[in-house]
Amino acid sequence: MKAYKDMTKEELQALKDELTKMYEDAKGKGLKLNMARGLPSAEQLDMEADFFNTLNPSVNFKSEAGIDCRNYGELIGITEARKLMGDMLEIPADNVFVFGNSSLNVMYDTVARSVIHGVCGSTPWCKLDKVKFLCPVPGYDRHFAITEQFGIEMINIPMKADGPDMDMVEQYVNNDPAVKGIWCVPKYSNPQGITYSDEVVLRFANLKPAAEDFRIYWDNAYAIHHLYDDKQDQLIEILGACTKAGNPDMVFKFCSTSKVTFPGSGIAALGASTNNLDFIKKIMTVQTIGHDKLNQLRHVRYFKDFAGMKAHMKKHAEILRPKFELVLAELEKGLGGLEIGEWTKPIGGYFVSFQAVDGCAKKIVAMCKDAGVTLTGAGATYPYKNDPQDSNIRIAPTFPPIDELAKALEIFILCVKLASVEKLLEA
Amino acid sequence: MKAYKDMTKEELQALKDELTKMYEDAKGKGLKLNMARGLPSAEQLDMEADFFNTLNPSVNFKSEAGIDCRNYGELIGITEARKLMGDMLEIPADNVFVFGNSSLNVMYDTVARSVIHGVCGSTPWCKLDKVKFLCPVPGYDRHFAITEQFGIEMINIPMKADGPDMDMVEQYVNNDPAVKGIWCVPKYSNPQGITYSDEVVLRFANLKPAAEDFRIYWDNAYAIHHLYDDKQDQLIEILGACTKAGNPDMVFKFCSTSKVTFPGSGIAALGASTNNLDFIKKIMTVQTIGHDKLNQLRHVRYFKDFAGMKAHMKKHAEILRPKFELVLAELEKGLGGLEIGEWTKPIGGYFVSFQAVDGCAKKIVAMCKDAGVTLTGAGATYPYKNDPQDSNIRIAPTFPPIDELAKALEIFILCVKLASVEKLLEA
Repeated sequence: MKAYKDMTKEELQALKDELTKMYEDAKGKGLKLNMARGLPSAEQLDMEADFFNTLNPSVNFKSEAGIDCRNYGELIGITEARKLMGDMLEIPADNVFVFGNSSLNVMYDTVARSVIHGVCGSTPWCKLDKVKFLCPVPGYDRHFAITEQFGIEMINIPMKADGPDMDMVEQYVNNDPAVKGIWCVPKYSNPQGITYSDEVVLRFANLKPAAEDFRIYWDNAYAIHHLYDDKQDQLIEILGACTKAGNPDMVFKFCSTSKVTFPGSGIAALGASTNNLDFIKKIMTVQTIGHDKLNQLRHVRYFKDFAGMKAHMKKHAEILRPKFELVLAELEKGLGGLEIGEWTKPIGGYFVSFQAVDGCAKKIVAMCKDAGVTLTGAGATYPYKNDPQDSNIRIAPTFPPIDELAKALEIFILCVKLASVEKLLEA
Repeated sequence: MKAYKDMTKEELQALKDELTKMYEDAKGKGLKLNMARGLPSAEQLDMEADFFNTLNPSVNFKSEAGIDCRNYGELIGITEARKLMGDMLEIPADNVFVFGNSSLNVMYDTVARSVIHGVCGSTPWCKLDKVKFLCPVPGYDRHFAITEQFGIEMINIPMKADGPDMDMVEQYVNNDPAVKGIWCVPKYSNPQGITYSDEVVLRFANLKPAAEDFRIYWDNAYAIHHLYDDKQDQLIEILGACTKAGNPDMVFKFCSTSKVTFPGSGIAALGASTNNLDFIKKIMTVQTIGHDKLNQLRHVRYFKDFAGMKAHMKKHAEILRPKFELVLAELEKGLGGLEIGEWTKPIGGYFVSFQAVDGCAKKIVAMCKDAGVTLTGAGATYPYKNDPQDSNIRIAPTFPPIDELAKALEIFILCVKLASVEKLLEA
């Protein structure tokens, strides 16, 4: 394969004509394919049929502690659900607060609470002139939407191969008291599928924040979402690392079963120090009497224990693995050697991150759309939807059936080529 | 029966000696009874067994609109759940937003949203020097806890026989732009069981608020919670009344199935104008991807329609009616003619409100507690837990089995008598 950058103008023009024709043909097919969001596929959801037998009229609805899960109470969650989610978070049940169906909602409320009530007694952020969050980029669009909605200034931190640029993180956190948080997806990150290295996690744990109410927002959304049995990323447990470093209160951990059982009908959890949990409980006691304990019970009885949950994740992996392998194979086959794009090769999570030629991402996404393939909006992986290089595209291969995925990738590759050729011809 | 106030000092002293002896005996019994909170009883919860068969591996999980309820999406709720909750709220499905398991949480978030983001474009309350809420008293302690937590000044509005004192409400709302809301439980109110009269509702609908962001927080928690088939309170539907009066945006309606299916595992809803819902959706789109649609589907398929829900409520009434009748009969038998207390005689809802001799409520509740009967804390029915007359006590008869309820009432009546005698002897 000849790299596009080494082609003559004439070669590029001829290529453009050929690609344009292919693209027009593709548009004519009236496709309707979606690689936009990290949704589990129907096939994954079908696996959970037995989930619905877990609670039935003949079972008892008492928790292990004898609480009737059908009635009010237990704000922090039933003990066995705290244990299960604690295992998922790799921390003791005592450090776990089980919530409702959405960890995004937990994160939003955690920021909202800080804005209104402060963090463990600190000044409420709404009383401050300026609050800043660090945002490793590319990152998760819904994280950035939260901080944007609260008027929090977001600062881009480049992602390296093993996590955020920690020199920059330390520089900001340890010196600027307006920096109150950092958004992290530390394992199989969204969108790159990167897992933070030991060094990165330990540097996080040893931060010396200028702000007493600085917290690491550690969204371990893909904690157990491996694609392979024999090669899996490992991540140091951050709450323990922070505690060892003398910073037990510095981290909020989040997780959920949204991509374990059902998106929207799973259970979410927050992991944190006792000090943090006590403050949150005190505020939340006014917000709600408790979350859905029957759904907590359903999860505990369905999985029995964490081993059951992990065994279950292997079934998800079997469905997802071929999709990821297809993406990587097609990208390599279609774009390898052309030097018009780079992409990550994750072994877990829900995404592949594609780095196009600078200035091409928006165009590629728009072209795909016109040909019936919906991708995550270009720029979405950056705060304020502003990718300064206009280069990053998130590929979400989980939802479409594999034959549709193949068709969508074909279009995607075609659009990458065409947009790149056009860019080179402009230069 | 001779009224206590007509007794001589000697008669009172003799009565006191006798009651004290009875009270000491009662204390010796080591009872442990609870009339504190409005919890459904185990017997009520047992009725719902079939609820757990509603979703099972053999059903399909598509909503009527073809949405897979197992996956992400539908922030505002699936259409058929909006219809069901709309019927409960007596408004069109288009005006309904279906949430998670807790209407309290919806109310809290509605206030929190106003504090942070304002109401439909108004100044966020956190930017204002003073925000006030009107609080009909006695009222629901958890309402008052919300406004207290946000530092909102609460103003007592006396409840009359047919609702809040509307002269006062109009005076405040129509003249003071700092008044941003009023908490209402308009039907079978907590704790009095009063239903607002037509005149009261129409005066609400015709308010001319000084503040553009004033809203009526209309918590119709007991909308369909009648005790009788043949005598039921009627309430004018407020959103329609507000719309007719030219104030379509002035009300937020709340309800849930917490006391229809399961506390903690029901579904909650907000009813409001399109204008209000559009604003809320815009903000909430960042807070969560959606609520538990499987639980919405479960409810819709369990009840089939609103007629099914109403039929189901008759079964609750059959369990609750004897408890309320017992309370009223025992109070009449034990305290009738003594002029040491008045109580309401609701035909729906979850509470009976007791008005003790001024200055006696705290003492009665404390005495009951020492004798093993837990009541809602005295003062809880007032903002800041401050009942200026120290007179109101909320009786929650729903949770204990009827024989325990009878025992608890016996203690309660004894404590009312003893506290009253002691009060009269002090005078």
